[in-house]
Amino acid sequence: MDRIRMSASRAKVYDLVESNRFKNSIMGVIIFNAITLGMSTSQTIMGEIGSVLSVVDNVVLTIFVGELLLKFYAYRMSFFRSAWNIFDLLVVGLGLLPSQEGLSALRGLRVIRAMRLLSVVPQMRAVVQALLDALPGMGAVIIMISIVFYVFAVMATLMYGASFPDWFGTLGRSLYSLFQIMTLESWSMGIVRPVMAQYPSAWAFFVPFIVITAFSVLNLFIGLLVNTMQGAVEEDTEAEFENLRILVRDETDTVDRNVLALMEEVKALRAEIAESKGKGGT
Amino acid sequence: MDRIRMSASRAKVYDLVESNRFKNSIMGVIIFNAITLGMSTSQTIMGEIGSVLSVVDNVVLTIFVGELLLKFYAYRMSFFRSAWNIFDLLVVGLGLLPSQEGLSALRGLRVIRAMRLLSVVPQMRAVVQALLDALPGMGAVIIMISIVFYVFAVMATLMYGASFPDWFGTLGRSLYSLFQIMTLESWSMGIVRPVMAQYPSAWAFFVPFIVITAFSVLNLFIGLLVNTMQGAVEEDTEAEFENLRILVRDETDTVDRNVLALMEEVKALRAEIAESKGKGGT
Amino acid sequence: MDRIRMSASRAKVYDLVESNRFKNSIMGVIIFNAITLGMSTSQTIMGEIGSVLSVVDNVVLTIFVGELLLKFYAYRMSFFRSAWNIFDLLVVGLGLLPSQEGLSALRGLRVIRAMRLLSVVPQMRAVVQALLDALPGMGAVIIMISIVFYVFAVMATLMYGASFPDWFGTLGRSLYSLFQIMTLESWSMGIVRPVMAQYPSAWAFFVPFIVITAFSVLNLFIGLLVNTMQGAVEEDTEAEFENLRILVRDETDTVDRNVLALMEEVKALRAEIAESKGKGGT
Amino acid sequence: MDRIRMSASRAKVYDLVESNRFKNSIMGVIIFNAITLGMSTSQTIMGEIGSVLSVVDNVVLTIFVGELLLKFYAYRMSFFRSAWNIFDLLVVGLGLLPSQEGLSALRGLRVIRAMRLLSVVPQMRAVVQALLDALPGMGAVIIMISIVFYVFAVMATLMYGASFPDWFGTLGRSLYSLFQIMTLESWSMGIVRPVMAQYPSAWAFFVPFIVITAFSVLNLFIGLLVNTMQGAVEEDTEAEFENLRILVRDETDTVDRNVLALMEEVKALRAEIAESKGKGGT
Repeated sequence: MDRIRMSASRAKVYDLVESNRFKNSIMGVIIFNAITLGMSTSQTIMGEIGSVLSVVDNVVLTIFVGELLLKFYAYRMSFFRSAWNIFDLLVVGLGLLPSQEGLSALRGLRVIRAMRLLSVVPQMRAVVQALLDALPGMGAVIIMISIVFYVFAVMATLMYGASFPDWFGTLGRSLYSLFQIMTLESWSMGIVRPVMAQYPSAWAFFVPFIVITAFSVLNLFIGLLVNTMQGAVEEDTEAEFENLRILVRDETDTVDRNVLALMEEVKALRAEIAESKGKGGT
Repeated sequence: MDRIRMSASRAKVYDLVESNRFKNSIMGVIIFNAITLGMSTSQTIMGEIGSVLSVVDNVVLTIFVGELLLKFYAYRMSFFRSAWNIFDLLVVGLGLLPSQEGLSALRGLRVIRAMRLLSVVPQMRAVVQALLDALPGMGAVIIMISIVFYVFAVMATLMYGASFPDWFGTLGRSLYSLFQIMTLESWSMGIVRPVMAQYPSAWAFFVPFIVITAFSVLNLFIGLLVNTMQGAVEEDTEAEFENLRILVRDETDTVDRNVLALMEEVKALRAEIAESKGKGGT
Repeated sequence: MDRIRMSASRAKVYDLVESNRFKNSIMGVIIFNAITLGMSTSQTIMGEIGSVLSVVDNVVLTIFVGELLLKFYAYRMSFFRSAWNIFDLLVVGLGLLPSQEGLSALRGLRVIRAMRLLSVVPQMRAVVQALLDALPGMGAVIIMISIVFYVFAVMATLMYGASFPDWFGTLGRSLYSLFQIMTLESWSMGIVRPVMAQYPSAWAFFVPFIVITAFSVLNLFIGLLVNTMQGAVEEDTEAEFENLRILVRDETDTVDRNVLALMEEVKALRAEIAESKGKGGT
Repeated sequence: MDRIRMSASRAKVYDLVESNRFKNSIMGVIIFNAITLGMSTSQTIMGEIGSVLSVVDNVVLTIFVGELLLKFYAYRMSFFRSAWNIFDLLVVGLGLLPSQEGLSALRGLRVIRAMRLLSVVPQMRAVVQALLDALPGMGAVIIMISIVFYVFAVMATLMYGASFPDWFGTLGRSLYSLFQIMTLESWSMGIVRPVMAQYPSAWAFFVPFIVITAFSVLNLFIGLLVNTMQGAVEEDTEAEFENLRILVRDETDTVDRNVLALMEEVKALRAEIAESKGKGGT
């Protein structure tokens, strides 16, 4: 941020949105809003102070919109460089969608605003960042699992779709059912045994699927663990090795300095003797 | 504990409660009580010697109260400095609650007294301590999971509460149902499929919830593991590095001492020559 | 591949199938086919362009057969040395099976062709290779689990087969049911509690089975993890140790060189003195 | 085994039971028996050659009894020093129990004989040994989990036993149900929700139980993992450190030897000069 080139008013806004007081106020509003959103789930409370909560919600929304506008005025296009800002924008934007149609789903999505706690508290940001940092290392295995999922889902749809439309009727349903089977929830009693009643060899489809996905997820996990551990251990031992290297250098340098001083001494002695001999020869 | 400044009688009590004989007797009473509490679950045994067990229970409770009073007399306010004492106090205190009202719940809670085994056997204390020591390092991730739980619970209540009051009718019920879903118990067949029958896109709410919480718990676990491992490995390698450092120092010091002795020799030689030259020059 | 001894036409084909353009084209065909296979699961799409998709599928199959024939012409018998080629052959061969009989199972198996993505994309090959590389180290534990499975399956069939033919009627059914129990799916409510209603001590058969398999799988996992980690850590520390060894050698060599130079100096001095003495003695 | 002091016939038997031919024959019989035991689960096969299988089983049993008698004659009381021998004795002994009463349970237990594969194949012995070696390190945590289980089982029996006799009617049933809940199988839909219908605050009993046991099992697993890893890593790094120590000693010794040779040189020089001076002084 090149604060110096800003106009006076923009610099003022910039200082404001960067100030701790501003950040803490916003965090307070988010926590307050999280509580009021929680209260709005109770029909008793809604019956008594529902209209108050509704007003509070609109006020909070206005504050959030104002905050984002100020930030946008201060940062201009670099506002969009931070993924957290985009997250805030989306999450606040959801609250601006017209809820007239009485879609309870949209009413619910509004609550996601409380997730801003994750983007505003620095410690939470660090945790989320750490989780996201772990993702790229898992890329190849995730793509592999996706391919396996896709192929098995297409096969399941073609093979069992006609007989079990609720579970495997469409590609989407098959993907959902396979996800359920991967989590091992009711996979046998709920799904595979009924399928086997009609296709007795269905186990030869589902058991390998479970073994393959379980083994892949295990490897995903091991890869993640080894990466994290390696990073943590390396940092420590690298420091230890650096210490040891410094020690080896220091100690041998001390010896070397003494050897070189000795060399000076011997050379001086030799020079003296040569000199005295020269004198003696005179 | 400043035993010297105590009055004679208090010092006596202090010595008593600190003695191994006293500790072992209490441990014996706890184990005996654990067995009688176990016996009291059998209606056959209760029918025959129920009154005996009830008397035994009151005697044991009296012993425990006496033990805690003696400890409190010996330690005074520093009694409360040990979390184990507070645990004992709570757990014994539960047994003193009036059980006249026939609340079977309170009858059951009395049994928690047998947990004193964890606070009295030193090895068990160490295990519990190790488990508790692991908690602070997981703080940030636990708070994150709590925020995610709260937000999803509020959303679920608002979105599905009206149609599925048993599962998502109140914030508490939603939290419980989401906990069940996180443990993957009947999440699909039991909950999400019925919900999807009414709200076909409910999977877009529950599947991300499962993935997010599973991934967070995984990271919690990895963090815990890396911490434990790092501690264990570091201790070992640190000792190895220390040994190596000592070796490097010792070996180079030996060489250095020899070089310095050589320096003395050369200097002595030089001095002799200078002397003989001086003599020769005279 | 001894390209030099090939006939001109074979060398040409060899260069073709080894070219990136050829490989990328095949990958494109695989992805395109994966999409058309996915589309063929939708009855709406099949109703409209089903015949097109069927033609596309035959064209793709022809391309794959052509590709494999070209490869076989180029590599001759060494074609079979690569497990990936055999995988491709099997997977393409499945599509050539007559599907006239209208077996939906065979229709489904055709889709496995999309798995060729795993054998064609180099990153995917690496992931699959890593998964397969992990297997041999787990051999002994897998055999042990197999023996335990076999013995428990025979026992379950003999003991509970007559009363619960659906679950334990044959060796195969017992193996399937024990696999389900190992995954903990409905093991108690679905299987063991009903069995216990007839054989009250059945828990003494199933609970140890769960504990033994869970513990074995855990050890399988730990073994896998320790292997992976050891490999990863060793590589790093080995490099560090090598660096340290080089440093120790370099540093002591420097000192040694100086000591040896000093030796030369002292020897030269001694020679000079001896010479001058010889002269003086003359 | 003090073979020398044995009588001639005992030494002969000792050599026999220790010979590879004898061991391999027994292994062959075990595998053959494992297959015939598997065949005896099929009613079709039993109908045709059931009497043959029954004869085969008796022959095999006779062979096993003969083998154990020979071993006992060769080893005398030291036969019982090997846990594997005791395992074989128990497992073979089960087959000698009278099966007249037609108890299918005893018929089934006979099959456990096939487990001898684990005690006869050396690789399997190693795997089982490794599993058993892991147990002692987990002792304290296992005792802790046992105490928690016992206390929660007594509480559950007292609190919910009257209303849900099938699940919590006796201490044994409560322990079984809590084991099921620990494995997360149908814990909510199957058990806790029905209990909560009557005791709405039952979640406050079961959710902490799940969290405590999950966390304890996790720690058990982490402890096991850290132990295994530490052992594996230590062995490697210890060797590396030993190599480095040897290198440091060698390198500095080389330097030191040169320094000492130099010292000899200087001392010789000094002696020569002193001598020449003495001569010069004469």
